[in-house]
Amino acid sequence: MDEAAAMTEAAKRCGEGRGPPKAVVRWGRRAWELLEAVRRRAPLVQCITNFVSMDLVANALLAAGASPAMIHSLSEIDDFTPRADAILINVGTLSDGWLPSMRAAAAAAARAGRPWVLDPVAVSASDFRLEACLSLVGLRPAVIRGNPSEILGLSSACRIRDSKGVDSSHEPMDAVGAAKSLAQASGAIVAVSGAVDVITDGRQVVGAHNGVAMMQRITATGCAVTALIAAFVAIDPPNALEATACALSIFGLAAELGMAMAKGPASLRMHMIDSLHGLDEHTVASRVNISFIA
Amino acid sequence: MDEAAAMTEAAKRCGEGRGPPKAVVRWGRRAWELLEAVRRRAPLVQCITNFVSMDLVANALLAAGASPAMIHSLSEIDDFTPRADAILINVGTLSDGWLPSMRAAAAAAARAGRPWVLDPVAVSASDFRLEACLSLVGLRPAVIRGNPSEILGLSSACRIRDSKGVDSSHEPMDAVGAAKSLAQASGAIVAVSGAVDVITDGRQVVGAHNGVAMMQRITATGCAVTALIAAFVAIDPPNALEATACALSIFGLAAELGMAMAKGPASLRMHMIDSLHGLDEHTVASRVNISFIA
Amino acid sequence: MDEAAAMTEAAKRCGEGRGPPKAVVRWGRRAWELLEAVRRRAPLVQCITNFVSMDLVANALLAAGASPAMIHSLSEIDDFTPRADAILINVGTLSDGWLPSMRAAAAAAARAGRPWVLDPVAVSASDFRLEACLSLVGLRPAVIRGNPSEILGLSSACRIRDSKGVDSSHEPMDAVGAAKSLAQASGAIVAVSGAVDVITDGRQVVGAHNGVAMMQRITATGCAVTALIAAFVAIDPPNALEATACALSIFGLAAELGMAMAKGPASLRMHMIDSLHGLDEHTVASRVNISFIA
Repeated sequence: MDEAAAMTEAAKRCGEGRGPPKAVVRWGRRAWELLEAVRRRAPLVQCITNFVSMDLVANALLAAGASPAMIHSLSEIDDFTPRADAILINVGTLSDGWLPSMRAAAAAAARAGRPWVLDPVAVSASDFRLEACLSLVGLRPAVIRGNPSEILGLSSACRIRDSKGVDSSHEPMDAVGAAKSLAQASGAIVAVSGAVDVITDGRQVVGAHNGVAMMQRITATGCAVTALIAAFVAIDPPNALEATACALSIFGLAAELGMAMAKGPASLRMHMIDSLHGLDEHTVASRVNISFIA
Repeated sequence: MDEAAAMTEAAKRCGEGRGPPKAVVRWGRRAWELLEAVRRRAPLVQCITNFVSMDLVANALLAAGASPAMIHSLSEIDDFTPRADAILINVGTLSDGWLPSMRAAAAAAARAGRPWVLDPVAVSASDFRLEACLSLVGLRPAVIRGNPSEILGLSSACRIRDSKGVDSSHEPMDAVGAAKSLAQASGAIVAVSGAVDVITDGRQVVGAHNGVAMMQRITATGCAVTALIAAFVAIDPPNALEATACALSIFGLAAELGMAMAKGPASLRMHMIDSLHGLDEHTVASRVNISFIA
Repeated sequence: MDEAAAMTEAAKRCGEGRGPPKAVVRWGRRAWELLEAVRRRAPLVQCITNFVSMDLVANALLAAGASPAMIHSLSEIDDFTPRADAILINVGTLSDGWLPSMRAAAAAAARAGRPWVLDPVAVSASDFRLEACLSLVGLRPAVIRGNPSEILGLSSACRIRDSKGVDSSHEPMDAVGAAKSLAQASGAIVAVSGAVDVITDGRQVVGAHNGVAMMQRITATGCAVTALIAAFVAIDPPNALEATACALSIFGLAAELGMAMAKGPASLRMHMIDSLHGLDEHTVASRVNISFIA
């Protein structure tokens, strides 16, 4: 069983025996509405992100129609963050110097009622990074997006912390279970990127099936899609689950279109951004592939 | 009236009734001479620029034939800056840690008689940034380049400061008026990027008409053209107005050539840099479109 | 005599009258074995590199099959560095803040028995940078790669330091002589990039002949190939000379293949990374061009 199938299976198990049927969402139409609104309203997304990703993050946001602002200085948070429509915080090249800015921006976003999105890159790389991510989770992100090992690491650390240092769970969790647990503990929508992207609010689980495997051979594609999630959530904060799923599928769809022209990862990167910029209603409505899986 | 027409109109109004006819400049030939000299002499351009732009800034300079050096540490300014032929200072990802380097490099450039160019990115994003930019303007840049809102913000702040905290002007300024005012206050050539780029020394106003709208969907194109201005001004510091206009048009022309091959912003970025590298005399002489507009 | 011929000549002179014939290495096969092992084992390469290069460094490593990790905080070195298979330290945008991390990572690599590779970018730009690089050389890099002026500058400074402040050599050295001297003084493999790349352990001198001139018009290609060297050396640390030569030729070969499709430096960059990702056994075995030249 490949990774996609495994995650779908796991998601189904999590949902077994749960309540009423889920709301019918016409995902293709919803994704188009959100993309069209991003293009029309050009939400201002403040990005406190890692050095590696800044170019692709800014260009992905611009290609989608949003307005990126890479402003990270602690001296500017109070003035600038309340003006942003959403904030991206990505810990990829974390340092002692940047962490206070991240915390201040997350707090300022909360005060201003703006959604902020966390990308806990390589959360298990060090104790310093894990502690930093846990402290950020405590500042109530609207969405957390990571790969399976990042979500497993962060979710497990949250459980240990909540149980006062002893991990009360003896069974190992899969990524979907970890995502649901993290969503419940944090109050955030949690998205796990993979062959199928899985998005959950702790109860419902949605799968976004667009994307191509070669994206993993391009640096910062994960960071870029997290930025896109911030732009989409800025349009409709109360429906962050839907916005997150749509952003993931829109980005994956752009990669699918790009892949048809690509000869390798570098040309895929270019064609993917071009495709994101050029997406039209028919393509989005017919090819976005999202479904409730639990 | 679109933005281009509005700026041309505004520029004409500013020049009304002014003195003698302007010197005849054969702009296409002048642009080629400067580009050819950049390729031949490979001016060393020290870039203290934002993280997002470093890749495109370096590659644009290399494609034009210049030599970029991304050296920003305060510990290196005294040794290195006097060796540079021109210095770019761009405040895009400003922080308390970098500002002293920027100020030291500007001062070192002044002592060594080297031109330096300021890109006041998002100058109105915070009080910290505005104060930083004002202090840099006081260190006598040869050229300041920004978009209309940046030049309006900086010019307005200069007027308020010069009038001891009270903005003595009661009429709102357009971008061209703001550029002229800022040029007079600072002694710098001021360039305003837009559908038409406007360049002024506070008296004369020149319009550079090359470029394509999609450049605004690529991050750091403004930063890259400011770097190119630094390379061109390094060739002929006493004629910074001409060098600035030529750099803007050369960059815009490369974008026009790139646009003929592009399918979106990411491929435009690639074709634009390729085109900048490949520009030949005939294309430059025949297609550079610059004129005195006041 | 062009630069390539001059370096080959210089290399030959250095080796005159030296001992036994060199081992026969089937370079094309060796290069393929190493590339294939990088793809299979995906070595984790921690990169403490300059801001300009991060995107290309990460994408080059990913295209080759390695796993880059851009982690530079001093707070993370102890936890993370021992897990890496190799470490890249590149001083391109050096600052007081980053130097302790570089020194700590180099020391941690030594303790953990991991190879680390030094790229002494612009070593002669300032006294601060030269001192920093000398201190890093003292922490025993497995490989040092630079351009001719960097290797000349670093080698000369090592000789002055070793002779207690007085440069005992009165004759000027060429880059190959400087590389041999630096290799002997440091214990590292030293590689000099140029029209022909020269690699030496202080006794043997190997030439890697792949590559295209236009790579010099793309920022960070030198940084990227140093990262690739780290990935290759991670596969076979005891044979760092061979791994270094193979990495240089593989990268140069990717550039040759890319050049056949490129229209300028930006498209070369894209096609080069695509080609690196797509290299097959036949192409590598037949086109890698490495030879002992002394």
